[in-house]
Amino acid sequence: MSYTIIDGFPSTSGDNYPLNTSSIIRGAAQTYPEVEIVSRQIDGTLFRYNYGQAYKRIQKLANALKRLGVKPGDRIGVMEWNTYRHFELYFAISGIGAVVLQMNLRLSPVDLSYVTNHSEARFIFVGDSLLPNIEGIADKLETVEGFVVITDQNLGDIKTNLPSLKSYEVLLEEEAAEFEWPMINENSAYSACYTTGTTGKPKGVYYSHRCIYVHTMMMTSSLRLGLTDVIMQTVPMFHGQGWGVWFCAPLVGAKLVFTGRYTMETTDILVDLMISEKVTFNNGAPAIFMPMLEYIRTLPEKPDFTGLRMISGATEPPLSMMRGYWNLGKAEVIHAYGATETTPIVLMNRFKPTIKGWTQEQEWANQSKQGLPVIGLDLKVIAPDGKQVPTDGETVGEILIRGPWITTSYYNDSRTPDCFDENGYWKSGDAATIDEHGYVKITDRFKDVIKSGGEWISSIDLENAIMSHDDVIEACVIGIAHPQWQERPLALVVLRDTAKETVSKEDILGIIGDHFAKWQLPDDVIFLDKLPKTGVGKFDKKLARSQYKDFYSE
Amino acid sequence: MSYTIIDGFPSTSGDNYPLNTSSIIRGAAQTYPEVEIVSRQIDGTLFRYNYGQAYKRIQKLANALKRLGVKPGDRIGVMEWNTYRHFELYFAISGIGAVVLQMNLRLSPVDLSYVTNHSEARFIFVGDSLLPNIEGIADKLETVEGFVVITDQNLGDIKTNLPSLKSYEVLLEEEAAEFEWPMINENSAYSACYTTGTTGKPKGVYYSHRCIYVHTMMMTSSLRLGLTDVIMQTVPMFHGQGWGVWFCAPLVGAKLVFTGRYTMETTDILVDLMISEKVTFNNGAPAIFMPMLEYIRTLPEKPDFTGLRMISGATEPPLSMMRGYWNLGKAEVIHAYGATETTPIVLMNRFKPTIKGWTQEQEWANQSKQGLPVIGLDLKVIAPDGKQVPTDGETVGEILIRGPWITTSYYNDSRTPDCFDENGYWKSGDAATIDEHGYVKITDRFKDVIKSGGEWISSIDLENAIMSHDDVIEACVIGIAHPQWQERPLALVVLRDTAKETVSKEDILGIIGDHFAKWQLPDDVIFLDKLPKTGVGKFDKKLARSQYKDFYSE
Repeated sequence: MSYTIIDGFPSTSGDNYPLNTSSIIRGAAQTYPEVEIVSRQIDGTLFRYNYGQAYKRIQKLANALKRLGVKPGDRIGVMEWNTYRHFELYFAISGIGAVVLQMNLRLSPVDLSYVTNHSEARFIFVGDSLLPNIEGIADKLETVEGFVVITDQNLGDIKTNLPSLKSYEVLLEEEAAEFEWPMINENSAYSACYTTGTTGKPKGVYYSHRCIYVHTMMMTSSLRLGLTDVIMQTVPMFHGQGWGVWFCAPLVGAKLVFTGRYTMETTDILVDLMISEKVTFNNGAPAIFMPMLEYIRTLPEKPDFTGLRMISGATEPPLSMMRGYWNLGKAEVIHAYGATETTPIVLMNRFKPTIKGWTQEQEWANQSKQGLPVIGLDLKVIAPDGKQVPTDGETVGEILIRGPWITTSYYNDSRTPDCFDENGYWKSGDAATIDEHGYVKITDRFKDVIKSGGEWISSIDLENAIMSHDDVIEACVIGIAHPQWQERPLALVVLRDTAKETVSKEDILGIIGDHFAKWQLPDDVIFLDKLPKTGVGKFDKKLARSQYKDFYSE
Repeated sequence: MSYTIIDGFPSTSGDNYPLNTSSIIRGAAQTYPEVEIVSRQIDGTLFRYNYGQAYKRIQKLANALKRLGVKPGDRIGVMEWNTYRHFELYFAISGIGAVVLQMNLRLSPVDLSYVTNHSEARFIFVGDSLLPNIEGIADKLETVEGFVVITDQNLGDIKTNLPSLKSYEVLLEEEAAEFEWPMINENSAYSACYTTGTTGKPKGVYYSHRCIYVHTMMMTSSLRLGLTDVIMQTVPMFHGQGWGVWFCAPLVGAKLVFTGRYTMETTDILVDLMISEKVTFNNGAPAIFMPMLEYIRTLPEKPDFTGLRMISGATEPPLSMMRGYWNLGKAEVIHAYGATETTPIVLMNRFKPTIKGWTQEQEWANQSKQGLPVIGLDLKVIAPDGKQVPTDGETVGEILIRGPWITTSYYNDSRTPDCFDENGYWKSGDAATIDEHGYVKITDRFKDVIKSGGEWISSIDLENAIMSHDDVIEACVIGIAHPQWQERPLALVVLRDTAKETVSKEDILGIIGDHFAKWQLPDDVIFLDKLPKTGVGKFDKKLARSQYKDFYSE
């Protein structure tokens, strides 16, 4: 990193007062003590309490952590669904100066034990329904001294072979509900997340207190979150901090709803919870929002989602899905973009009333873009020659980003120099255009671009076109080695059950034929019951490519 | 200051990326280039441009400042109305690492020259209509090397005896519209304001880049400002940074309206501008909002102020005024509290939907409180024994504050140790209660409390009660030395023109008699055409007390 920071005239303002997570929850307890937190439990019942009560338990937990021997700087693994206790753990662990290691239950055992050992975690907190994930790697863990099970059961009733097991609630019982929070250097880590986006071992991003503090403020500003909102945390809090949305709630005094355990097959739960708790803000990905909409279509009485905003990441939200929610009371699906390295929010698709003269179709097309750079970041789209691409919405370059909530290295990792440029920008690996109004559109991952006969084909464009078919639930397009053309596109498609007998390869290629050159169209379409996905719900193109690697050669 | 900051585990996040003002305006130019800025000119016409154009001029100005010889750390005085050029100056001066010295045109010449000399300002930028204010002190200025006049006129047409005069527009003309912003240590000052709240010479508060950055984010969050808003900057930007409201606009992409020149006598201008530009957010004080409402009452067609929020500071907004705006489309007057030392926002009165069961009258009464502590600050209300007062809404203590945007000293000033406690809290000098819901109410300045016969009488409670009279425009109650009771209250009252012949002292005392003990009532009521005010529009009780000091002794 090579930029210079110059000194101006000294200020008198409170700059030695650190930006710490504890000041947010302490403030919420003072200003919004009666505001509710609702948490769905394993048995489907709802646990309810408020910021005042949560803060008391967080103080108890901080005392319990100290009694356990946790010291500032220690890494503490947490594997838990989105629950009120997960919320408590984030604030108590970071509040005493330790670090929440996010343990993604969808990681492979090999990766999960690597992450735990690499971070040298001293303790692991684990939900009782998730014990098998930890038991499976227990003998590989080199630094863990003990385990705390997050449970409503008695410790004696829990069957596990984990040693040194303690119970979360028992730990809390003995403690005082008062804690004097230390002032922590704001550049110290508050949480760590390992990214598995590329090949090789996961890479560690350690977020600072300052980073999440500024990110949270930016997010509440950008999204106009406020104390009349009801925020539901749907994205798993064990990865990428669940996009930091739940963190916004105590900052603005919004009611907070935790989804508890759900799977891709049980997203109905989420819809029911949104209706019963009058949720106004939600976060997730099309992989979740699509089946939710399917379920809503079966409801005899359509929910009124007036004022609802849903921030949608991971993959491009299909227009049909965005329209589906819009028809339920102008509910807005807000496309956003980020990564583990970016805390994560970088782009957000907000409609600008200052843009005049668009047709409704143009407005919808614009909604599918990843959106506008949020204020506070330096974002560039860079052509191979190192220059910024023109803002023409056509020229493709790589997104480079730096700013107060962008990582500048990977923890203890020799791959760091390859991933950042000499001015401290993180190289995203995402190909994108930027238009005259400032909207950025991701056209592809550089490694997912299909190279056919010396030309590039965008897999994402093909996927979106295929997904515009009414009977298609999901589609993924991959480049497969081809004896003549180097690579050729292959489409993997999931159809609605009702269409499985009727929709053919020709139908799929037919509806996209008008929008692409002939040589850009997939050579074949394979219908599947479901698509391979990564631990964070993205299409696992790496896996798909290996499964079909000989498809065009055989 | 004595708190310790501990180190945790190192993070990998972008903590060496400084929070600088330049990143906000650079971001606005990238993300919201077409969003409009409107600035009312001296002749009443409106100047219009947008963030993209403003950013080009700001870059030209940055180049011009460098050519003038301005260096990082230099202090540059600015005396100007709320205009687009004032906006440009803030960003260009701070962006190159220099400091905007806010020159309050309502300061006495003695104080103004003191402030300029104390800060050692090298240049002064001054609006052409304000030249006399600077000419009057020019021979007292010890460090100023040159003056730049902010004007649309030719330099030759301006009559002034100021030496080394340059023209703002001529300076810009010659410069390139591109500038490479330096990274500035975020703890360096971006602007300075001198507080005149207490006795003695003004005291210098030097706000850092980080301080205004975090304050701005907090403000946009707390107020739910967003890109569909139209923000009008009414509070003068030459003092307390105009409460930082105008700074929120580029952060969220809101249209920004600058009022230009107006006085207490010409507030009609403000109403007309709000209507024509469809303003949704405004800031000011009852001293401004009251005559505005008077004017609105004379309009044949009442404006529709649906969705309007007006943040109101300095003095408690009378209920009748808040109701008056509410009747124009549920326009919200948001009572807020702060000081020069606090950047300024500390308390803001937001209605919490979580509080159930209040009557409408209770809700209105609650609105008059200064409000809830914004998240991020440590705010205590401290009894004389040093303990926090109970949250009973009755027990009075002094407000103490510390946090990321609270000053921790005065620049080069021996009075610093008296104004801060040993834990880094600023001692506000304001007496307040805090209630079970977290709402804080200022009951008085400690120095304005009236001490009568060994008991305290709140001058503010009396003022509010008197101002609830329909025919009263303003009222101020002061403690006057009394031979028997030490002090006794005296009320100074301004009546509506139509009521001047009909309302008597007995009428005034009559309507407040029910709410106070007999001994708490003013012994006398004096009717005036206007009340003495300080440079920032507050009742000048110091002056009033000296004018009437012998009233009860004679």
